[in-house]
Parts: sequence; structure tokens; C-alpha cells
Amino acid sequence: MTNNNNYDFNVESLGKCTVNSPLDIIYFVDDDNRILLDASLKAYRAECKKKGEPWSMEIAGPRKKIYFDPSKTKAAIVTCGGLCPGINDVIRGIVNVLWYGYGVHNITGFKYGFQGLVPEYRHETVELKPEVVKTIHQSGGSMLSSSRGPQDTGAMVDALERMNINILFAIGGDGTQRAALEIHEEAKKRNINLAVVGIPKTIDNDLCFIEKSFGFESAFSAAVDAVRGAHQEAEGAPNGVGIVKLMGRHSGFIATTATLATSDVNFCLIPEVPFQLEGPQGLFLALEERLNRRKHAVIVVAEGAGQELMRKEAAGKQTDASGNVALKDIGVFLKKRIDEHFKQMKFEANVKYIDPSYIIRSVPANPTDSVYCMQLAQNSVHAAMAGKSGMVVGEWNNTFTNIPIAMAIYRRNQVDPDGPLWLNVLEATGQGKLHD
Amino acid sequence: MTNNNNYDFNVESLGKCTVNSPLDIIYFVDDDNRILLDASLKAYRAECKKKGEPWSMEIAGPRKKIYFDPSKTKAAIVTCGGLCPGINDVIRGIVNVLWYGYGVHNITGFKYGFQGLVPEYRHETVELKPEVVKTIHQSGGSMLSSSRGPQDTGAMVDALERMNINILFAIGGDGTQRAALEIHEEAKKRNINLAVVGIPKTIDNDLCFIEKSFGFESAFSAAVDAVRGAHQEAEGAPNGVGIVKLMGRHSGFIATTATLATSDVNFCLIPEVPFQLEGPQGLFLALEERLNRRKHAVIVVAEGAGQELMRKEAAGKQTDASGNVALKDIGVFLKKRIDEHFKQMKFEANVKYIDPSYIIRSVPANPTDSVYCMQLAQNSVHAAMAGKSGMVVGEWNNTFTNIPIAMAIYRRNQVDPDGPLWLNVLEATGQGKLHD
Amino acid sequence: MTNNNNYDFNVESLGKCTVNSPLDIIYFVDDDNRILLDASLKAYRAECKKKGEPWSMEIAGPRKKIYFDPSKTKAAIVTCGGLCPGINDVIRGIVNVLWYGYGVHNITGFKYGFQGLVPEYRHETVELKPEVVKTIHQSGGSMLSSSRGPQDTGAMVDALERMNINILFAIGGDGTQRAALEIHEEAKKRNINLAVVGIPKTIDNDLCFIEKSFGFESAFSAAVDAVRGAHQEAEGAPNGVGIVKLMGRHSGFIATTATLATSDVNFCLIPEVPFQLEGPQGLFLALEERLNRRKHAVIVVAEGAGQELMRKEAAGKQTDASGNVALKDIGVFLKKRIDEHFKQMKFEANVKYIDPSYIIRSVPANPTDSVYCMQLAQNSVHAAMAGKSGMVVGEWNNTFTNIPIAMAIYRRNQVDPDGPLWLNVLEATGQGKLHD
Amino acid sequence: MTNNNNYDFNVESLGKCTVNSPLDIIYFVDDDNRILLDASLKAYRAECKKKGEPWSMEIAGPRKKIYFDPSKTKAAIVTCGGLCPGINDVIRGIVNVLWYGYGVHNITGFKYGFQGLVPEYRHETVELKPEVVKTIHQSGGSMLSSSRGPQDTGAMVDALERMNINILFAIGGDGTQRAALEIHEEAKKRNINLAVVGIPKTIDNDLCFIEKSFGFESAFSAAVDAVRGAHQEAEGAPNGVGIVKLMGRHSGFIATTATLATSDVNFCLIPEVPFQLEGPQGLFLALEERLNRRKHAVIVVAEGAGQELMRKEAAGKQTDASGNVALKDIGVFLKKRIDEHFKQMKFEANVKYIDPSYIIRSVPANPTDSVYCMQLAQNSVHAAMAGKSGMVVGEWNNTFTNIPIAMAIYRRNQVDPDGPLWLNVLEATGQGKLHD
Repeated sequence: MTNNNNYDFNVESLGKCTVNSPLDIIYFVDDDNRILLDASLKAYRAECKKKGEPWSMEIAGPRKKIYFDPSKTKAAIVTCGGLCPGINDVIRGIVNVLWYGYGVHNITGFKYGFQGLVPEYRHETVELKPEVVKTIHQSGGSMLSSSRGPQDTGAMVDALERMNINILFAIGGDGTQRAALEIHEEAKKRNINLAVVGIPKTIDNDLCFIEKSFGFESAFSAAVDAVRGAHQEAEGAPNGVGIVKLMGRHSGFIATTATLATSDVNFCLIPEVPFQLEGPQGLFLALEERLNRRKHAVIVVAEGAGQELMRKEAAGKQTDASGNVALKDIGVFLKKRIDEHFKQMKFEANVKYIDPSYIIRSVPANPTDSVYCMQLAQNSVHAAMAGKSGMVVGEWNNTFTNIPIAMAIYRRNQVDPDGPLWLNVLEATGQGKLHD
Repeated sequence: MTNNNNYDFNVESLGKCTVNSPLDIIYFVDDDNRILLDASLKAYRAECKKKGEPWSMEIAGPRKKIYFDPSKTKAAIVTCGGLCPGINDVIRGIVNVLWYGYGVHNITGFKYGFQGLVPEYRHETVELKPEVVKTIHQSGGSMLSSSRGPQDTGAMVDALERMNINILFAIGGDGTQRAALEIHEEAKKRNINLAVVGIPKTIDNDLCFIEKSFGFESAFSAAVDAVRGAHQEAEGAPNGVGIVKLMGRHSGFIATTATLATSDVNFCLIPEVPFQLEGPQGLFLALEERLNRRKHAVIVVAEGAGQELMRKEAAGKQTDASGNVALKDIGVFLKKRIDEHFKQMKFEANVKYIDPSYIIRSVPANPTDSVYCMQLAQNSVHAAMAGKSGMVVGEWNNTFTNIPIAMAIYRRNQVDPDGPLWLNVLEATGQGKLHD
Repeated sequence: MTNNNNYDFNVESLGKCTVNSPLDIIYFVDDDNRILLDASLKAYRAECKKKGEPWSMEIAGPRKKIYFDPSKTKAAIVTCGGLCPGINDVIRGIVNVLWYGYGVHNITGFKYGFQGLVPEYRHETVELKPEVVKTIHQSGGSMLSSSRGPQDTGAMVDALERMNINILFAIGGDGTQRAALEIHEEAKKRNINLAVVGIPKTIDNDLCFIEKSFGFESAFSAAVDAVRGAHQEAEGAPNGVGIVKLMGRHSGFIATTATLATSDVNFCLIPEVPFQLEGPQGLFLALEERLNRRKHAVIVVAEGAGQELMRKEAAGKQTDASGNVALKDIGVFLKKRIDEHFKQMKFEANVKYIDPSYIIRSVPANPTDSVYCMQLAQNSVHAAMAGKSGMVVGEWNNTFTNIPIAMAIYRRNQVDPDGPLWLNVLEATGQGKLHD
Repeated sequence: MTNNNNYDFNVESLGKCTVNSPLDIIYFVDDDNRILLDASLKAYRAECKKKGEPWSMEIAGPRKKIYFDPSKTKAAIVTCGGLCPGINDVIRGIVNVLWYGYGVHNITGFKYGFQGLVPEYRHETVELKPEVVKTIHQSGGSMLSSSRGPQDTGAMVDALERMNINILFAIGGDGTQRAALEIHEEAKKRNINLAVVGIPKTIDNDLCFIEKSFGFESAFSAAVDAVRGAHQEAEGAPNGVGIVKLMGRHSGFIATTATLATSDVNFCLIPEVPFQLEGPQGLFLALEERLNRRKHAVIVVAEGAGQELMRKEAAGKQTDASGNVALKDIGVFLKKRIDEHFKQMKFEANVKYIDPSYIIRSVPANPTDSVYCMQLAQNSVHAAMAGKSGMVVGEWNNTFTNIPIAMAIYRRNQVDPDGPLWLNVLEATGQGKLHD
């Protein structure tokens, strides 16, 4: 676990911090306060034996000396990508800490994501201050709206330069953070004093070296209602089968956690664990057995599950273009295939399909996420005011951290098929392997 | 308004009530306590002038003398059709009032709707008593499960006769009540002492001469969350359009009420009010104007809206069979047509479609519905114990009533396009006519 | 039921309506559309026999001709008394209908109730427009704040006159409406063209000739959570007794409805029905029996229940002033007396007392109340624009009505101890009489 | 950080594990998998330098070899102390994992806490199986009920011995775990093969070496509603002050977290941080300044806060016995003192006091807690089946752990007045020191 590979958890800085923090508190954090990446005793022993320096991350928090002079600082916020519970909490937290904590009173909100930084879209900007953000956390969504897709880095840095912005807070997922990193690099190249600090937003919880994404708990909690609905629908009809598709293109965290929260789920299908429909280990047979035994079944499927299966079936059938399109949606695909399977068996089954994604991702943050969003916001402001850049705030071993954007997007966080979370799912569902 | 047409609000009775009610209460209702159908002053004047007897309904409630001897009475409950919030509350209420109020301790629950009365399905029955139903109201769905579709009336009456059942409570919509009426008629023909009492369940609120269906408030309240989600999604993207499809095959009550509850809806489309897409009055132009003005829009559409529109378009395009299938879903149709429209205009619009039906109909009853369900249950037991049959309980002019099943299914309850509810919607959305 | 007593349901008008309504709708209501007070068949027969004109109320809604010219109209809103769910919904509805429906763009919000109309308090006013009220319904409370207690009528009319206000919307309970009536009378005396329209706010549901108060459903729904908590606490300890005090100084509607919604309540105590503690019919003995049988019990008590009982006990004990103060709270009194009773019997009982009033009354309106608030708001604006004054909007026989303030405060709406609601409670709790 | 003081994180075992685990999974945990107590880089450096073995905890999870033969194992569950969200989830999880995972079908539930183990109380026991616990998690409270206070250890071990119970799961707080430890010691002394495994229940989150208590998130989330209510009440009246008392006898976690979740709190008072009322740093002056500036204020106070203050004031006033009683409740005390303070200043303030404790602790677990409860339950069964005893399950550095009961009750977990959580509160409230 020594630092002999690609890992580099050192955060970049714009320069020496010479300004006294205006925060009237007794507690400050030093840059050399760090938290171990691997807190296991085994790792300790191995590392200590070879007298190495184990990987570690910088601990987040307020610094005694800061880089920017608050009275002259101009900050901006942008929110990108799909909706996620808590975005407004983060915006509100950043504005309040900048304003009341540091005395930064010049804060701009860009609208519609990175489009807002590109003049041709002609989106207006919003002047942010405490009274504007006072009640925004009561609504889901983003008060700044959002958009998807990349914009020209040069054009965006032009805009930031023109507007004399010193700090850019970028709330978004891996694509957004990648773009934020490019803005950071371009600003360095141009020698502009711009701190780019990301607040990682990923409803799928798939960012790396970050234990928990904001909005994740609110999202899976909302998903639980859909699963309960599927369970009622399944129990409510002869041989009822309720299918719920949940978010998770590459990582099945929402599906697994919603499964654990309800105990109503009989089959949990995620991208990390392949499954098949036919054969003695396949889903169809397991489903039949379940229906014969209990007369109803609930299936939770992450949107990224079974992609290979669909590709195979599509290939086998030489399906045309429009057919392929239909196959891409694993929920629709599963419903169709299960319907066909039981119809062919002349077995009365009532399959009901629920896709609650937009409802889930647009809920307001629950209280736990509100706290977490505020803490992330506070720490992102502390980092930015200290002149740190090209980084995101996160949490690791229950401690708030500053890590380089490059590390957060290094690879994808996924459910470990041999780890305790998936084990919990297997214990809770009793679903077995579902593939050869 | 005199009784000179098809209306007949007189409830049938199995015979003379000779048993003293075991209820230890001071308040009993006489059969000749009735409530006017039309409580307007105009109707009074017209009716009184011609010295007529205006239409009226029997008031529900406990009778001093009852028909059945509780200690020898065998009751049964069946739940049919789609799920609706509050079914379990009604079951629980019936069981508790039979058991504790009247001392009827022999109560059977049929499983899977009318299938449960037909031996070939081999569904088990459930013995119902207070401890079995103690907490069922905390879950949505039906503890007895349900099924759709008719069963043979003769076979069902055979089963009831064989099991010596005296009272059948049928919880279900118009199809169910039609079947209950047939059971009642068949029992009369056979001279069996069977009281058939319906508890009207229609999430669409479309039963006639009944002011409010149980579960309706819970359902539209759950719908409100989906509309809020659509609103967040619409605001969250450039020119975002959120479409929510809600229940309502023939009646737009859920769509209109959810619209009034949120004030986020810009276009509410229901079966009772036709609309068109193209033309100067059409939805497309109105939507464009809305997007140009406010950059987002929310559309709520009842599942039965725009059927004629889809039929026309399908006919015009000589669409094939599979095409027709797709067209039947107004939500999918609208999303597709709006997407196409804006694509053709080269106008960036982000259309998101939400279909929350299964989530909505499977929620537990909210407190208001819990109260209403219990009151319906109490009154249905009072009616049944008094030997009334072929009837349903309901509410009219804020008073619980007993009315013949025939009246409840006489015609469909619908939103009046010239009435105050739709007026409220027009005021709230400002949507105008949307057709020539 | 003829008009030979104090009832007068005729609403006053400032004058002839000569302005065309700017509302672009097909549906208008005439002043002679009225709804019967008593919709029973018996009342019809009696009334018709003597050829009388039965009591009736004016039906609310938009009038084709209105009194005020919208472009010159200045409206104001004031909210008084205790908090109640839905106040913000009403404010928002009034502002939106005035603004978008009638084109009235001059709307003032007075702060802190009637204090806001009296200069010496120096409260600022708020300029109300759609963007200010856009999201206020998401919070409970009142965006205008409130205050209790009367202010000088002359001073308030001076202020209204000075500010050239044409319409005053007064959201409040019986005290507020009494004051609104005085303002209306004073304005008449001074010959000012001021329309005073009340929106009745009473969480206790105790206003007369109004079927349902706004906020009532939200309030009792929130109360249900407290009752559930009391039930859990009671079940959770040996001989647990959970006591919940709910709002209701003179009317037990919240207590009775919360009792019906949960089925967890064993004793429901309200102001309308006296009870005693001691004796063979008393609460203590009934409670003992319940504990011996089931080991736990839940008591719901309206704040106005048992006042006489407390007075008697206080008198008997010659209690001093501070003692009397303590006795005024029936919840605290009951807990203390039950504790003492069981301690004296050397019977282990665990009595837990919950007073959730402030939590209940500060919740946001639920969707049903949101709809109702909007409808009340719409109708209050329609009435005001038509120059009606000294009146409140309400609902009767499922129809929105305009009635004189004098009628709404004529007497108090109470739970009828011989009516169906209390009967439902007796059936649900099985509590018996609890007094000799 | 070397093991040179009282810390001993080694878990006791009944003996060698020789039975093959019946779990059909690929993932097992070895006893020497351990997690560091202190995951900071500083600790690593210091420890490694002196070549020590740092403190660490055993990682929880299924063992490949277990101690008990499932077919012969008899397990029992007891729940003690006050209610806490999630108790039923834990019971349900234990029963399901024992039954379906290990095949243990003999499970007894003791009723009313440790009373249930003592014959003289004559409480019945409950036979636990999956169908009995199927829906219990939908309710708050404990299906086994609870009681407070110690019982005779010898008598309890007598009962366990008589009933041939091999495993006792004790769900409860520090008192309960202390008693569980005594049972474990007594069983060892008697040479009985009894595994005693605790599941730590503390709504105050005050158990040591355990990152998060189950039910804590549900509890503080429910507290948030009360704080919102207090905020509405405060804003709703001239100079409104809303006081909410929350749980926390010695630890202010619920108060601090609820404060962070709402951003409506201006003063957060906890046991760990002293405050004073009078003087230039005192609460009164700070409150006055807040009211003058914003006209309303919200105070959250943990039940254990300000105890010294109350003692001092009581002593100064030579208060009598009954006076002392009143003073013990910091919420009541604060309301009284603030009322008096402003009355004396002749300053109109409206102080409202909310005590939501019973409502909070009786809510059902939220989805996050449901997951956590199930994971704790699973791990407690894994530990017990492996013959571990005198231990509790917990979480540390995001990893489930087995730790000796002695460590969990070693000292109290408290909010660090110099740590990041309290810092967050100071940033969020801006409340300053509130003492000299």
C-alpha cells in the first residue's frame, strides 16, 4: 500500500496562506493532519514493517491562515448534471459560510450548468446572498438549474477571468469534476488566481475515495417507497411480480441499500454481478419457485444491470435499430421477457413495472443529508479560502477530507461482489447466484 | 327533479327487523331519515311549487332493530379490482365492528377477489378476527389480495350457500358492484338470506351519487409528490418539460385535484375536456409560449385524456398493430410528440415523463381516509346487520347514505367542464381552452 | 326552520356591480344561487307544507359584474391569532387570483396581525406579489406573522383610509372576524368604500355554519403521529398509559377525529361530554379494567375537556392561586391524578404525557388543505371584487358559500354528543359513558 | 496509543469453533481481521516509530466455523430501557438471520425487559419466528415491550439455565449492557454455555467506541420537525422565542445534529458546553440582541444541559423540595426564566416551549436506520453463533466490529467542544461562547 503507484492524494495550492482567518473559533486544522486510506491492522503491520509511509488524505476544515482576502474575493457556484437531493442545501451552505463566516459578499450563481459560463447561451447569472437562499433547501432540484454535456474550457475560463472570479465551486459528478479539473489546469496555465473546488454530486454513490455521496440517503429512502409499492402490487394480485428499476449505471448502491432497507425484495440485480434468465441457475426458474412457494415476488434492478444480457439477446435476434433502443432499458426488457416467459408457460402471472427515477432524484434532502451537505459546503469554503484548487471535498473513515479531483475520478466506486454489503443482500434476499 | 325517471334510491331489505341491536348506544337512525339529492334553493322552490316529493337517499347508521341474530351470523369479505389506499382500513373496520359491536365472531376473508369464491382456483380463505387485522392498516394494498375480471355468478352463490354465509361485503369498483348486484339477484331468486353490501372503491372517484371515494385523498396526495418531482425536473434543465400521467380512465378528478394542490401545473389534460396539439389554440403553441416566457413547464395528464386525439393520429398515419399499442398510452404519446415537435423546430427542450400510478395506488391510507374508511365500514355493517342488500354505502351532502348498487353504477361521476372544479383549474393554470 | 328567528344569511354589498369581470371564463355564479341550510327530507316536507322559504346561503364564486375597477383597486391582507396549517396557502391564493385573475397589482401585507394596522407598533408592511409568495406554502406558519388581542377599531380604519385600501382580507378565528365586522361597520359609518372579507381560520373547527376549517385535516393528521407515539410508549412499558392533549378549547373535533384515525385510543375526552374520575362509571375504574385486560391504554384529551372537574377539585381542596394555575391544564392534571391514583393502589403504572400542540399547528398544509385553501382564497377574492363586505367564505353541503360574519360567530360549532361523529368514537373506543 | 492502559478490545469466546457454518456464502471473516482505533497518520507514525501494536477492534461478520450446532441451539431476545427507533428492526433481523441463515428455529422473546426473566413478574414469553416478526418494523416501539431498572442477576441466570437458553441477545443502553455483562460473568462462573451478545441501543448516541447508535438518525430527523415548528411559532408572533428540549442527558448529539439539519437554530445548548444566563456573555443579552435584530429566535436545549446552572440558582434561592423538582427540567426552567427576564424588562416576548421527546423516540426507523439495524442484527447473530460472549456489535471507521461490553461502557461518548461537530454548530448558529 506504499505510494509506489498512481495514487497521489496531495492537494494543490495557489500559494502561501498569509491572511488571518476571520473565523472567530478556537479550532483550526493543519494541512499535515491526515487520515489513513486503509485503517486495517493488517495494512498497518505490513506498512510499518517496511517502514513505509502509508497512503493518506488531507483532513478538511478551517485553516488559521488563508489565501484570499475576503473583502476582495469574488466567488461563483455552478451546478451540473442530473438532479440529486441536497444540491440546494450545498448552495445555501456555501453562500452562508462565505457570507457570515468569511465576509465574502460577492457571490455569483451561474445558471444551467456550464452553459451558464458560455456567453452564447445568454443565460442570466444570479446574485447570491443569504436572503436569496434562505428557504431553497425546502425544495429538491437546483435553484441554479443544471445542464448536461461539456462546454469549451477556454471559453469558460475566459468568462471567469472577465468576471474576476477567484473561486469556482463546481457541484457535479465525474464529468463535471473532469471539466472542473480542466478549468483548474487552464487557469494555472494562464496564471490566474482561480481556486476550483468541487463538491462531488453522484446519486449513484460511485465516486472514488469518497465514502458517501450527498443525496444518496435521501435517494434510496425515496426508492424504498417505490419498493414498498411494488411489494403491495405483487401481493395484491395472483402471482404478482413487482419490478422496480432504480438508478445506478455502473454501481448498484441504491439498489442494494433499498433492498436492505425493506426486506421485501427477493431478487436484487446490479451491474457488478452478472445474472442470466434461462437455465437451472437463471432468474426465470428462481422466480417460478418463488411464485409457487409464496405467490408473489419483488425484483429490484439497477439501470446498469444486465447490459451484457441484453446485448447478447439483441445480437442473437439480429434485432434492428429500433429494437436495440427498446432493449437498452433493463426494466422494460425484464418486464417484457418475464411476461413472455410466463405466457408461454400458460402460467397466470401479473407483472407490474415501476420506474421512479425522476421522483427519487427530485426529492428535498432528508435531515441526515442536510447535515452532510452543510458540512461539505463548510469544508469546501474552508478549502477554497485557503487557496486549494483542483480538489473536491469528501469523507473517509468518518472524517472530512480534501482530495485531488484526479483521485475522485481515478476509477469508479462499486459494490464489491465479495464484500460485506453484497453479502448482506444475499442474506436478506436469499436469492443465490442467478448465474452459472 | 320529481321521481319521474330512472332514479330509484330505495334500498332493498331481506325482511322485517325483529332482533334488538346489541349496540349499547343512545343514537339510532330510522329508515325514513333521508337526505335530499339536490340541496339548492332553486330545486326546493321548483319541487315545492308542484308539491312533489324530491329525490332523496336513505341515511346510513345503526338501526334499533336488526335482521340478523349476531350469534348465528356468518359474514365474509372480498376485495376486487386494482389497489387503492384504504382497503385494509375498510377490512379492519368491518371486522372490528362485527366483532366488538355486534358480537359476530364468524368472519371469512376470500382471497384474490371473486376468484376466491370459485373452487377451481383453490385459493385458501382467511379466518378474520381483530387480532389478525390489528395492524393491517399500516400497509397499503389488500391483506386479502385481489383479482380482476368476472367470475360465474352461479358458482359464487353456490359457494356462499355451501359455506352458509349470511353477509357478503364486496369492496370494489363499478365492475365489482355490478357482480355484487348479480349475486344479490341470484340469492333472491334462490331465496337465500344473503345480504350483499358493497363498499365502493374507485381511486378515480367516478362512482355516481357518492361524493368522495375512499382512498382518493391519499392517492392525489401521493400524486402531488410526483408533480413536484416533475416541476423540479422541468426547472432543472434548459426548457425543461415535466409530464406526469395520473390515474383517471374516464374521470379527471385526481389530475384536477393534484393540479390544484401544487400550483406548479401549467397544463392539466383530462378525459372530460378535449384538447388538440396543433393549431393556434393547440398545446404545442401554448407550450412554446410558456417555455419562451418561463423556460419550463409542467403537464399533468389523466390516463384517459386525449384518446380521440390518439385515435385520429393513428388513423391518419395508417399505423400498424404494434403502433396502435404504443399510442394507447397518452403519457408516452405526449412525450414522443412533444419531443418530435421541438426537435423539428430545432429548439432544445428537455422532456421528462413520470408514470407514478403503481406507487400512488399502493400507499397506506392517510389519516383523513382512515377516518372515512372506518366510517364506511361501520355503516356498511350497520346496513348489513339490518338486512339491507344490493346496496352500497356512500356519502352525500356530508351525510353517510345507503344507496342501491344500481344507482351507484347508473352513470359515471365526471369533472363538469362548466363547473366550479374545472373553473378552479383554469384559474390555477391559466391554460385556456387548448382546442378550437 | 323558517326565517323567524335570529338567522340572517344575507350578505351585505357595497353597491351595484357595474364593472365587467376581467375573468376569461364561461362560468359565473348569480347571487340568487343558494344552498339550503338543512338538506334533510324531513325539513323539506315541513317547510314546503307551510309554504315557507327555508334558510339558505349564498353560493360563492365569480360574478359576471364586479364592483371594483381592478386597475384602481388596492387590497390588503392580515393574519391574526394562533398558527394554523394553510395560512400561507391562503395568502398565496389571494395574491395570485388578485394578480393574475383580476389584474389587481397593488397588494399590501400587514405584519403581526391587527398590530400591523396600528402605527404605534411601527411594524413594516410587505408588498405582496406572485414572486414573493411563490414558495411560501411549503412552510407552515404565516409569512405575515400574527398577533393576538384586539386593537382599536378607529385607529385601524384610520390606517386603511389613509392607505386608500379598498379590500381587506382578514384571515383569523372568531375574535378576528368579530374585529373584522367592527371594521366593516365603522367603514360603513364613515362611508368608505371598503370591502371586508374574512377567511375563517380555526384549527378547532368551531366556526358556525362552516363545514370544515382550513388546516383542520393537516392538524389532526399531525396529531395522529402523536397518538401513535403515545400508543407505542404505552405498549412499551408495564401498564403503560399514554396521554395526549390535543387542541380544542370548546370543541373536540381534533380529538375525536384523531381518535377515529388511529383506533389506538381507548378513552377520548372532549369538552362537549363531561366525565368523572371516581366512582363505578369513572375513568379510573375503566382504566384499571383496561390495564388488567390489555396492560396498556391510550387517552386523548382535548384541552377544553374536564374544566368543570378541575374547578370542582380545586374548590374542594381550597387550593391557592398557584395551585389553580396548575389545574388549568387538563393534560397535566390528568397525568398527576392518574399517577397518584395508581401509586395509592400500589399498582405499577407508567404514565407518559405528550403535548404536541405547537408541533401540530405549525405544519405546512397537506395537499387536501392546499386545495381547500386555494378554493377559499379564490372565492374570497371573487366576493371582495363583487363588493361584498362583512362576510366570510365557507363551505356547506359540499358547496362554497358566502355568509355574513355575524352568522359564522353566531354560536360555536361543537361535537354533538348525540350525533354520528361521537357515536363513531364510542364504537371505536368502546369507552362507555365515563360519568353517572 | 499502545496497549498500556485500561483498553482491552479482545472479545471473549465460549470455546473452540468446530461446527461448519451452514451459511451458503463465499465470504467469511477471520478473527484476526481488525480495524485500527485511530486511523490518523500521526498515530500511525508515532506507533510505528516505537514498533508498537496499536489498539484495534475485531471486525464483525460470519465465521466459517461456528461454536453452536444450529439444530440444538436455543436463542432468546430481551429489550430494555427507553424506546428508540429501530428496536423492532433489530428483533426482526435477529429472528430472520437465526431462522433462515443458520436454521435456528427455537427463539424466545422475553417481555418487559429484564422483568421478563424474573418469574415473580409472571410476564409471558413470546415464541419468535419469521411470520411473527414480518411487519413489526413498520411500527416504532418494541414488540417485546421494555422496562427499566435492574433485576437480580442470579435469578435471571437461573431462568436462562432452566430454559436451556444458549444465546441471549440484549438490546439496550449502558445499564442494560452492564447487566448483560453480569449475566455473562455469572454464566461463566456457573460454567454454563451461554453467549451473551448486546446490541447497543442509545438514542443519545453516547456509547463508547461505537460511531453511530441505531435509531439516532430517525430520532434526530423527527426532532427536526419539532425545531421547524418552533421556528414557525417564533416567526409567527412579535419577538417570538421557540424553545425545543431534545433528548441527551449527558451527550448533546441529537441537539447538535438537529441544529445542523435545520439552520433555523440560533442557540444550541448541550451538557458538554456550559452556558450562563446573565452577564455580557450570557444567553439573555445574546437573545435580546437577536430579537432586536431579527424579531424571533430559536433555542434547542439538550435535556442534560445547564444542570449546574439550575443547581446554582436553586441553591441561591434556598428553594424547597417541590421547587427543586421543577428546576430539574431545563426546558421548563429556561422558559420560565426567559419569560421572567423579558417581563421584568417590559419587553413583549412570546416564548413557546416544545418537548417532543416521546414523539421522537417512538417513530419507526427510517430507511437508513432500517439498513443499519439489519446489519447490526446480522452481525450480532454471526458473533453469537461463533460463541462470542460479553460483547456488543458496533461500527468503527465505517466497519462493523465486535467489542467487549466493558469497552462500550468504559466511558461516555460526548460532543467534543473543541472538535469539528461543535465547530459546525458554532458556524451554523453564530451563537458565540455564552459564558465568560
